[in-house]
Amino acid sequence: MVVDGRLCYGGDYNPEQWPTEVWKQDVELMRAARVTLVTVGVFAWSRLEPAPGRYTFDWLDRVLDLLHAGGIRVALATPTASPPPWFSLAHPDALPVTADGIRLHHGSRDTYCAAAPAYRAAARRITGLLAERYADHPALALWHVHNEYGTTCHCRHAEVGFQRWLRHRYGDLDALNDAWTTSFWSQHYSDWAQVSTPRATRYLPNPGQVLDFRRYWSDELLAAYAEQRDLLRAATPAVPVTTNYVLGDWVPVDHARWAAEVDLVAIDHYPSAAGPAAEEQIALAADLARGWARHGARHHARATDADLPGARGSWLLMESAPNLIYTPGRMHTREPGRMTRHSLAYVARGSRGAMFFQWRAPRGGAELFHSALVPHAGPESRIFREAVELGGMLDRIAEVDAGTVEAPVAIAWDAASGWALQQRALPSDGLDHHAEVAAAHRALWRAGYGCDPVLPGDPLTGYALLVLPALYLAAETTAAWVRDYVRGGGHVVVGYLSGVADEYARIRLGGYPGAYRDVLGVRVEEFHPLADGEEIPLTGGGTGRIWSETVRLAGAEPVDAYAAGVLAGQPAVTRHRYGEGLAWYVSTRPDGPTYQRLLGDAARAAGAAPTCPDAPPGVEAVRRRGPRASWLFLLNHTDEPQRVPTAGTDLLTGAVVQEALVLPAGGVAVVREHTGA
Amino acid sequence: MVVDGRLCYGGDYNPEQWPTEVWKQDVELMRAARVTLVTVGVFAWSRLEPAPGRYTFDWLDRVLDLLHAGGIRVALATPTASPPPWFSLAHPDALPVTADGIRLHHGSRDTYCAAAPAYRAAARRITGLLAERYADHPALALWHVHNEYGTTCHCRHAEVGFQRWLRHRYGDLDALNDAWTTSFWSQHYSDWAQVSTPRATRYLPNPGQVLDFRRYWSDELLAAYAEQRDLLRAATPAVPVTTNYVLGDWVPVDHARWAAEVDLVAIDHYPSAAGPAAEEQIALAADLARGWARHGARHHARATDADLPGARGSWLLMESAPNLIYTPGRMHTREPGRMTRHSLAYVARGSRGAMFFQWRAPRGGAELFHSALVPHAGPESRIFREAVELGGMLDRIAEVDAGTVEAPVAIAWDAASGWALQQRALPSDGLDHHAEVAAAHRALWRAGYGCDPVLPGDPLTGYALLVLPALYLAAETTAAWVRDYVRGGGHVVVGYLSGVADEYARIRLGGYPGAYRDVLGVRVEEFHPLADGEEIPLTGGGTGRIWSETVRLAGAEPVDAYAAGVLAGQPAVTRHRYGEGLAWYVSTRPDGPTYQRLLGDAARAAGAAPTCPDAPPGVEAVRRRGPRASWLFLLNHTDEPQRVPTAGTDLLTGAVVQEALVLPAGGVAVVREHTGA
Amino acid sequence: MVVDGRLCYGGDYNPEQWPTEVWKQDVELMRAARVTLVTVGVFAWSRLEPAPGRYTFDWLDRVLDLLHAGGIRVALATPTASPPPWFSLAHPDALPVTADGIRLHHGSRDTYCAAAPAYRAAARRITGLLAERYADHPALALWHVHNEYGTTCHCRHAEVGFQRWLRHRYGDLDALNDAWTTSFWSQHYSDWAQVSTPRATRYLPNPGQVLDFRRYWSDELLAAYAEQRDLLRAATPAVPVTTNYVLGDWVPVDHARWAAEVDLVAIDHYPSAAGPAAEEQIALAADLARGWARHGARHHARATDADLPGARGSWLLMESAPNLIYTPGRMHTREPGRMTRHSLAYVARGSRGAMFFQWRAPRGGAELFHSALVPHAGPESRIFREAVELGGMLDRIAEVDAGTVEAPVAIAWDAASGWALQQRALPSDGLDHHAEVAAAHRALWRAGYGCDPVLPGDPLTGYALLVLPALYLAAETTAAWVRDYVRGGGHVVVGYLSGVADEYARIRLGGYPGAYRDVLGVRVEEFHPLADGEEIPLTGGGTGRIWSETVRLAGAEPVDAYAAGVLAGQPAVTRHRYGEGLAWYVSTRPDGPTYQRLLGDAARAAGAAPTCPDAPPGVEAVRRRGPRASWLFLLNHTDEPQRVPTAGTDLLTGAVVQEALVLPAGGVAVVREHTGA
Repeated sequence: MVVDGRLCYGGDYNPEQWPTEVWKQDVELMRAARVTLVTVGVFAWSRLEPAPGRYTFDWLDRVLDLLHAGGIRVALATPTASPPPWFSLAHPDALPVTADGIRLHHGSRDTYCAAAPAYRAAARRITGLLAERYADHPALALWHVHNEYGTTCHCRHAEVGFQRWLRHRYGDLDALNDAWTTSFWSQHYSDWAQVSTPRATRYLPNPGQVLDFRRYWSDELLAAYAEQRDLLRAATPAVPVTTNYVLGDWVPVDHARWAAEVDLVAIDHYPSAAGPAAEEQIALAADLARGWARHGARHHARATDADLPGARGSWLLMESAPNLIYTPGRMHTREPGRMTRHSLAYVARGSRGAMFFQWRAPRGGAELFHSALVPHAGPESRIFREAVELGGMLDRIAEVDAGTVEAPVAIAWDAASGWALQQRALPSDGLDHHAEVAAAHRALWRAGYGCDPVLPGDPLTGYALLVLPALYLAAETTAAWVRDYVRGGGHVVVGYLSGVADEYARIRLGGYPGAYRDVLGVRVEEFHPLADGEEIPLTGGGTGRIWSETVRLAGAEPVDAYAAGVLAGQPAVTRHRYGEGLAWYVSTRPDGPTYQRLLGDAARAAGAAPTCPDAPPGVEAVRRRGPRASWLFLLNHTDEPQRVPTAGTDLLTGAVVQEALVLPAGGVAVVREHTGA
Repeated sequence: MVVDGRLCYGGDYNPEQWPTEVWKQDVELMRAARVTLVTVGVFAWSRLEPAPGRYTFDWLDRVLDLLHAGGIRVALATPTASPPPWFSLAHPDALPVTADGIRLHHGSRDTYCAAAPAYRAAARRITGLLAERYADHPALALWHVHNEYGTTCHCRHAEVGFQRWLRHRYGDLDALNDAWTTSFWSQHYSDWAQVSTPRATRYLPNPGQVLDFRRYWSDELLAAYAEQRDLLRAATPAVPVTTNYVLGDWVPVDHARWAAEVDLVAIDHYPSAAGPAAEEQIALAADLARGWARHGARHHARATDADLPGARGSWLLMESAPNLIYTPGRMHTREPGRMTRHSLAYVARGSRGAMFFQWRAPRGGAELFHSALVPHAGPESRIFREAVELGGMLDRIAEVDAGTVEAPVAIAWDAASGWALQQRALPSDGLDHHAEVAAAHRALWRAGYGCDPVLPGDPLTGYALLVLPALYLAAETTAAWVRDYVRGGGHVVVGYLSGVADEYARIRLGGYPGAYRDVLGVRVEEFHPLADGEEIPLTGGGTGRIWSETVRLAGAEPVDAYAAGVLAGQPAVTRHRYGEGLAWYVSTRPDGPTYQRLLGDAARAAGAAPTCPDAPPGVEAVRRRGPRASWLFLLNHTDEPQRVPTAGTDLLTGAVVQEALVLPAGGVAVVREHTGA
Repeated sequence: MVVDGRLCYGGDYNPEQWPTEVWKQDVELMRAARVTLVTVGVFAWSRLEPAPGRYTFDWLDRVLDLLHAGGIRVALATPTASPPPWFSLAHPDALPVTADGIRLHHGSRDTYCAAAPAYRAAARRITGLLAERYADHPALALWHVHNEYGTTCHCRHAEVGFQRWLRHRYGDLDALNDAWTTSFWSQHYSDWAQVSTPRATRYLPNPGQVLDFRRYWSDELLAAYAEQRDLLRAATPAVPVTTNYVLGDWVPVDHARWAAEVDLVAIDHYPSAAGPAAEEQIALAADLARGWARHGARHHARATDADLPGARGSWLLMESAPNLIYTPGRMHTREPGRMTRHSLAYVARGSRGAMFFQWRAPRGGAELFHSALVPHAGPESRIFREAVELGGMLDRIAEVDAGTVEAPVAIAWDAASGWALQQRALPSDGLDHHAEVAAAHRALWRAGYGCDPVLPGDPLTGYALLVLPALYLAAETTAAWVRDYVRGGGHVVVGYLSGVADEYARIRLGGYPGAYRDVLGVRVEEFHPLADGEEIPLTGGGTGRIWSETVRLAGAEPVDAYAAGVLAGQPAVTRHRYGEGLAWYVSTRPDGPTYQRLLGDAARAAGAAPTCPDAPPGVEAVRRRGPRASWLFLLNHTDEPQRVPTAGTDLLTGAVVQEALVLPAGGVAVVREHTGA
């Protein structure tokens, strides 16, 4: 484990923002809250190296010693996400440039180009010094590289880097010209030097270029990470190295691919919604992290090592908010009790603990109102009391870390499909792979089925059902992956706009969805995008949104049909026996209840079972199963007490449950189950 | 005719996007669809000249031979709308610059400054080579210069060009200072070198400068066009030369003025609306094209040549969409049957055929989802079957090309008035000459009256009624044009904000609308702009929108009055006998039915008659009259069969109509009329 | 007085826009309208110095002579708000640069960087020449420096200026690092040269840097103003010098601080609202101007001079609109009668007259539709007739200039608090000091209480009640100012988010609102921002908006409480005896009626009385009291006649009022009161 025998609990700790007299109080409060791990040094570069080559590590020495004395372990961060002002002044060519050609300036964070040689060299230097100085510090438990990789740039360094990456990807220009369809609009390249990043241009950009620019940045940032990781690993082979993922559609990082390069997948998660939608967002983010961890473990340098935490789906919630969460327009409150319940929801789905940003709320700076475990009001506060309570809960359930989350359904997720559907000039602005993944996940979550996100090509053994939500791109290998799975008896639900394009975002011709026509037994002839907010009725009683299509049957049978408009009477949902399996096609986005019923039907037909069939609506049930025991997490998201049939021992209360337990409103139970059920 | 004895039918054909084996299938499919003309070579520059001075015309030779062998004529395009990447790299000074000073980069199309000498030279070079090589090719039927001229630039070349253009327009700086009222805000120029393009500035720009910048670009682009045209004309005097107009409020091109420089007015048209509004947009666009063609023919180098197609109002729909049309947010479907009906609607109003973008849907590129006659799904599709049907229909009605469209009402249209009303700091953002033209046109279209757009100064003989919708600018000659027309017995309807300013966009003082106070017998003392969505009731039962005014009677009689607010009881619509004619003033935008009734009343009072008085609502009737016959187009835009009294032969079915015909829902008839009625 | 024995009446006069034959008509019309003062020369630079060093003052000589001959006094403007085109061409480094690094270009007004040495030198030169030439002109009554100071810049000059200003403010870098909390996100500065203006950066900027940038610009612009003022004052010690304030949240000018540097506070005011909200905006703007004037007088170089107009709250409305006022989307009409009534409303609240932009509507230029006393329609117009009427009214009430406005309530206003709440990443976008001041002012206006805006530190003697609306920043001196006031018997109403931060916008820790916890007897533990449009019910029957909080009582008693949500049952409004005084806390923004009742209760409890307790709703009453008389302004904003009990002589009609007068709909009375009541 990261912190021996206990779950990770703590957060970002920034003593450099406080006078030393506060440090001692901090350690005392951490002990009171049973904190086990704090992240130190993120954004500390200008305090560690206030002028070029002048280093002031002494304060960090003292902090680490103090924490160690208090029994707190440390995730030590490299501070490279924000170079000091002197760096920007000395290396203006390392400041980032927007697509408009505007060079950004110091004054925030992350204001550098990760492809700039001067930046990379400076980052290696400070990382090497940290590795050397703290390799043997007893508090060191984890290396936390950088912070939330996610920046891009259009400077000359980035252009050269992009050209190099393209040469490596395509080998020769003919291949690039073909992949990008440069014969459209006279974009044929006759020299690599002609290829630029997708700078501001007159009108629509080339979608292949835009997609590859995202891919390039994922790889360039990964190279920047790997340089640091290699330095740290060389200094401390036994200390795991990670970086905290930032989530969001704008992030140019293929998190699944990166998972092979970290020793522990770590995510920052701030649900943008209040109310019940927050719980759905948490379940999805946690499941994605678990899926990335498992995918990464198979490609990790120590892939054969069964002890890899990723191999059993373990990961870590590295940042979350104790209270207020910023959303566009205003922050919203995380109501009393939700911080603890939500923290356990992440652990239920594989997190090795619950970490927060940040420990103590700052007096100033850009995020001065970001919530913290010790808020502006100080420890005499509802938030800190809840933090103490959470520390105790996590201590009592530490054994669950041995378990693996159960999930009979796989949902395909693909960063590149998400990026490809962000291109301009698609038939509808409503197309969104991530949103479709979320919609399918939500439907299954509400129906009570566990889900594992998978990547195209991942093993599908053990999954009764595979769902492809707007998995726009399909390489030949992806098409074969689905075909083989269904032929061998798997059931699949293919959502609209899946497999329409190849891996270069070129249309697969002859009728949509080119990659899956044979498996699905349909041929889509035309698209009929729906307007924002428009609904199209289905004969089965539900409605479709966002999208509709002219679906011609070619072997499939209709399951549901459009009930109005030019498509009236034509198939909306179909089903097709293929090999030993069954392939469903859903040509629109069904409304919530209809989608829940549809995916529930598909899961049942595939032989899958809900995690806890008798759990009442609003109670989330997740099971983790270890070699010697299983644990059922029950989270009551309602405002009423709820009765759930189960048997075992509730680790939180110590109570033995014989037939059923009653969860109080908003309450949680973690039941070590009597049987392996 | 462009293609002997037949209407133009086909579209943009881009064989360079496809392997050669597809070409043969293309020609076969074209023949199956009775295609007569395809546009080849738009955007082919990087495939014709992949590196500077290295030419690869061979593939184009083969394509033209293949088409010729298949009996398909060619509109051969110059590829200058998208220079190859090597050009941009070699001539960074020819890349365009925004008002913010941001230089755009290669990566889309149209990314050049048309005022840059290097660009112009390169464009002449490739055009000259095409002219030389294909002058005698038997497939060549039409030269298609460039594509959708419409770009502006703020680079140094553009600044110098603008200064040169201003020197030519104004002669001396005093005239410019006076025209632009530079005494406001200390903008007095004392040297031509001080005058720049309207770059990003602190606050509101000078409206005269902004207006002249639009005019300059129209002329600069026209010069770029004319250079190419002259090269082509020199090589092939007998082959007509054109360029395809792109429509839209942003386009800095005075289409009417350009019409004198093309041998055939050609427009690209993509209705932004679905539903019935699409038909209204089509009628307006087609009428505008006809108006431009007629206006241009009078100023054409061969203006005395009666065979000029423009002289009888002929033009060509060069691009349209077979199916999906992009609108903000999503594409909308052109429902089954609408492509054919709409195509005939353009022909009814003077188009010499129906062309599409594009022939075959591409696999990739920025517009990969743009609809096509051969869609992604291939020829086994609803779209292609409809394309075959349309080819047959066009063949059967080819004789209508000899006819001229009947229209008793003229609507004044003026590019500069449109531009002037796009300036900032007008009393209301709702002011829009184009929208007012559309509103008046829609009202007359619904009332069944044919309309001819005219330019100020155009002959008005034969028109019973002239409508001036927010014709903001009025030179002295424009004022005289209206005055003489009314004095001589014409009837005019003047809309609000017409004639308020002179040709330099300076207010005509002493009361609005300065240019027409005498003719109208009114004096407008104050404006009262209405808020977005606000309606002001009229005593006649209707409502006004956008605008209202304090109208003082000075000879006119009130027709309708405001019924609420500070204007309650004051005139909203007036009528004034002037000379032998009648002049109406409309000081607000009436709601649809009120406007339809008002313009219907005015047309009737002027002695005009609807095209087909007995056509039921929803059936569009257009008559073309030739030297020896007349043709009545009847388009049923409703979902029900409609009976229309008429007599003649329906060219589409061959049926002889005795008293009336019944159009099926969505159906069309083209009746060669028994009488000249 | 500015113009002896009469109130100021007139406006901006721009003869340079007109041929000389118009000038004579102008003076005649001015005399007809009883104009007393016109502002000449704003934006005339390019007509006074058409080429570098070539001066053409002759036309201005003639204009001033002509005005003098007509008995019109002149506010002579320096034309520095818009350098001529030749200046921009000669000094490109004096063109302003945006945060994005985009250099703006000539073409509007105000397009210079006020920190550029070349600009400052040129401004001093033209000002010096004007001072020299017109020092002894008999028409000269007032110097009008520049126009609406309000621009910022990010060029190198500005960067250097900002660094210089920061060095002066903080002395050493440690102090700056501490004030800006640069330990957050690695922004620690080790050299002054590292500090830049808040240019475009990757993510959230440093709020301390942004706040100080605003402060810097206020001081830099003030220095630019002071240079001109000193030149003018040296030439004409007896002529007052001013500049016209532009109002708006974007303006980087601390108007109160500037008030010490002008001899007469002057504002431009264009109510953005139509309807009754316009009157509330006018009352607020006029009261603010009066508050600034009084604050400034105490810090003026002649602060001990009792004749300073500011000392008795006098100021001048320098610009207003006779009719149409631009608001986003459209201009709105100032209905007939409102111009006169509104003008008297400004005078009621301390304005020394009513000035307009502009005298004669221009033919062209960017603001060609800006309304004017002589509109496009000419003097034969409703507007000009109303202007004549207003001239007469102002003449009849000139004696009121001796009076001081009565106000028992003080409202704290602070430019820096407004700026600080414009930072990004606050808990809610709805936070706005200015809007909170407006809401409190509106509530008191509707309740009939006179208000004086005060600055932190201003004397509070004579005020029964002090209101602090979102006075976010509180220096120690501010906290003491409030504490001492309440301790000594004052009553205070503190609005949410007041005193939360110190003067560097750093949070005061330990519970909100740090500066006032002791006085209020509360401790706020958590914020609960409300969504846009969300309302939270209060147990007292009203609702709260924008904001809510967890308020813990620490001595205070609850007055109103939240009635739903997580805060149900917890205090929303509290009251606390402190010393001899009473301190209210309002933790949300009450709805209008609730706020009016709450502040009315607080005012009554504090012993304050409404200006005219018996005035019916919709009748605004303002009293000015002079050494020998008092005047009651009564403004009927309703559409019905209203009866108001009062006694005295109505100066407008000359009528003697015995017990009450009846104001016609929209009517005004200015009653010289019989008693000093």
